[in-house]
Amino acid sequence: MRHLLDIETLPREDILRVLDTADAMLEISQREIKKVPTLRGKTIINVFLEPSTRTRVSFEIAAKRLSADAINVSSGGSSLSKAETLSDMARNLAAMNADVLVVRDKCAGVPAMLAQHVRAPVINAGDGQHEHPTQALLDAFTIKQAFGEIEGRSVAIIGDIKHSRVARSNIHCLTKLGADVRIAGPRTMLPVGIEELGVKPCLRIEEAIEGAHAIMMLRIQLERVTGALFPSVREYSQTWGLNRDRMRLARPDAIVLHPGPINRGVEISSDLADAEASRILDQVTNGVATRMAVLYLLTGVGK
Amino acid sequence: MRHLLDIETLPREDILRVLDTADAMLEISQREIKKVPTLRGKTIINVFLEPSTRTRVSFEIAAKRLSADAINVSSGGSSLSKAETLSDMARNLAAMNADVLVVRDKCAGVPAMLAQHVRAPVINAGDGQHEHPTQALLDAFTIKQAFGEIEGRSVAIIGDIKHSRVARSNIHCLTKLGADVRIAGPRTMLPVGIEELGVKPCLRIEEAIEGAHAIMMLRIQLERVTGALFPSVREYSQTWGLNRDRMRLARPDAIVLHPGPINRGVEISSDLADAEASRILDQVTNGVATRMAVLYLLTGVGK
Amino acid sequence: MRHLLDIETLPREDILRVLDTADAMLEISQREIKKVPTLRGKTIINVFLEPSTRTRVSFEIAAKRLSADAINVSSGGSSLSKAETLSDMARNLAAMNADVLVVRDKCAGVPAMLAQHVRAPVINAGDGQHEHPTQALLDAFTIKQAFGEIEGRSVAIIGDIKHSRVARSNIHCLTKLGADVRIAGPRTMLPVGIEELGVKPCLRIEEAIEGAHAIMMLRIQLERVTGALFPSVREYSQTWGLNRDRMRLARPDAIVLHPGPINRGVEISSDLADAEASRILDQVTNGVATRMAVLYLLTGVGK
Repeated sequence: MRHLLDIETLPREDILRVLDTADAMLEISQREIKKVPTLRGKTIINVFLEPSTRTRVSFEIAAKRLSADAINVSSGGSSLSKAETLSDMARNLAAMNADVLVVRDKCAGVPAMLAQHVRAPVINAGDGQHEHPTQALLDAFTIKQAFGEIEGRSVAIIGDIKHSRVARSNIHCLTKLGADVRIAGPRTMLPVGIEELGVKPCLRIEEAIEGAHAIMMLRIQLERVTGALFPSVREYSQTWGLNRDRMRLARPDAIVLHPGPINRGVEISSDLADAEASRILDQVTNGVATRMAVLYLLTGVGK
Repeated sequence: MRHLLDIETLPREDILRVLDTADAMLEISQREIKKVPTLRGKTIINVFLEPSTRTRVSFEIAAKRLSADAINVSSGGSSLSKAETLSDMARNLAAMNADVLVVRDKCAGVPAMLAQHVRAPVINAGDGQHEHPTQALLDAFTIKQAFGEIEGRSVAIIGDIKHSRVARSNIHCLTKLGADVRIAGPRTMLPVGIEELGVKPCLRIEEAIEGAHAIMMLRIQLERVTGALFPSVREYSQTWGLNRDRMRLARPDAIVLHPGPINRGVEISSDLADAEASRILDQVTNGVATRMAVLYLLTGVGK
Repeated sequence: MRHLLDIETLPREDILRVLDTADAMLEISQREIKKVPTLRGKTIINVFLEPSTRTRVSFEIAAKRLSADAINVSSGGSSLSKAETLSDMARNLAAMNADVLVVRDKCAGVPAMLAQHVRAPVINAGDGQHEHPTQALLDAFTIKQAFGEIEGRSVAIIGDIKHSRVARSNIHCLTKLGADVRIAGPRTMLPVGIEELGVKPCLRIEEAIEGAHAIMMLRIQLERVTGALFPSVREYSQTWGLNRDRMRLARPDAIVLHPGPINRGVEISSDLADAEASRILDQVTNGVATRMAVLYLLTGVGK
């Protein structure tokens, strides 16, 4: 692994190596002293050109628990306001001997483009509607945590598949790991030809959920629901929202995932978000461990 | 102490323990190497949903001098723009194994509400017009520093008592510690029934100051003074401002406190703010020590 | 050195000491573990009241590689919105036992003014159109790196000399170090009486470049070029931009400098910016080393 730009081109073995490494990292965050010297003297720069709390904080905590120096750059107050090209900005940060650039941008392809301009490893922390690879890795980690394996497990992904980088990364990740992936959502939110990625499109949420091990609810962009793509939030919730009734169609030990932030009462009922089946907060905990693993592997310290 | 949400419900012994601990902490900031390993491997997240420089920086420095990892979250660039509930945000941060959440919000009650949703200790760093407990603790520390004791000392609090979280926390803190507390301010800025808190309301600043050990001037919100609550800045200053003349009514060794940022020439004359009697910068220095003490006590490292 | 406020009043020996120290610091950033304990327990506060990415990140990395605690303060979210005076803000930060304040402001003189109010050393990280001393020091370091000496080397500075703090600091620095400094730019962008600083004004870029060891291109403010000072970006580029053709007038081993962020195709052709002669990214690398040197010398740790 030189960069982590997407799951689509990431070999299966690399995914498995991240999951194994994350397992070891998870334990560090449970210690009394949550810090190891592994990345001491390394410089990790978080370049978040699209606003984010949880992902930036997760990467920052991951870096610090490995004793790296973490530096934050956001679009506000950046030299981007002076019309510098993104690639020049990345080259500049790399020239400060950065060891990793973590990049989020609202445009697809920005992390990959920057990776062509710098020698430092680049991690895609979410780029437009393209991919969000660390989210997919932490989701896979969470499913594996619950069921021991991902191979042969059934995962339903529900919601706005078409515009979701989380869905896209998860589809690539889960199919590579041998899961049975079903997707469901309003017709306007399903990409044409999605079957070719090896997933099964369903016309109703019930069909996707039936017998599933894991149900991954996507965050619905409220502005999309009330716009051209769907008539109303209430109707979306009734047709595509997850609640306890619908959960009965899944396996008794099925788990619920959500990349957050959740819209309570829209794509997921509030009680279900807090129920035992919900792994939403475990995902957050696992996110730190997964990002520690990715930082560790990309800096090549272990070699 | 599980959280530090307010002074109103904080037992007197806990206040005293913070003051004693702060004493030890103060010395650390005077060393050549201002750092101890006490909170190494702990994660302190500063959630400042209302803009602040001094309090955020004070907490961040406090955390770092104790070797904790400090992470900043502000409302700009946060997932709050995606309409996540505050409690979900707090649960997420806690799920990253945060050891302390330091929370400032413009709404009263937010830190207490969040404390019900997370296992991590929550520190109220100022919530609306409710409380600002660490400010009261550092003020008490500063008074104790000057006079050895707080019991029996006379403290005058002058200004907009009604809308001030600093005043509210200080009234609770100082009365618990046995001080004689007088308050004074324009009628529109005094809460009804304030006597019930054990303080003496005064109609004129001179009455409150007379014979006082410490005079605490509150910052006046200029937009309030020129609005419905008071006719003009100049008139406010003449009626309620502190200057050298009025200081002569206090004890000769009386000290002046102000939570900052000060409006020079409004609630306090510029020369008095810089005079020897002024403890305004000591408050800032003591603020770091007091917050180190609170972080130390809440993480339970010393147990 | 007590503060680093400008190059104009900085003795030649101090400049040389910074350059020598930066030499040692440069090596640290090339290590596997880019961190030394030199400034452990020191508190460096970056007060950036004008937006900046590269300079703030450069100082933050410099502080962290020396193991100092680095705290960022920006104008957004600062108490400046509450109308605190700048000097009170600086005094407050200093009262938290800050060891260095790094200050950028859009107004000339702000760092010097703050230095009068605090005991902590103040570093000017760029103040209006006045000076940007660490930029000049890193530029001198980069020229010395290429040619061994600065004395007797010819340096051409091209562009908007009049409004550039980078030009002003460089003119003072390079003339003190014995370089032959030529400047060139549109008449509207050359200060009256500039010869008195010991530099040679040129009417054409070719004249300034001829036989030069180093050519320093200034960033042109696009809003100035298309405004009253110059007719158009295209005409600016044709008359004052640097490209491979014009580079042939310089010495064969001449180097190109630019403080960044660059306007590709305006003051410098895009291919030249990436050519071997370009030292633009070395400047960035050297910037961290130079700032480490300045932080080291100002904290007096080495004494």
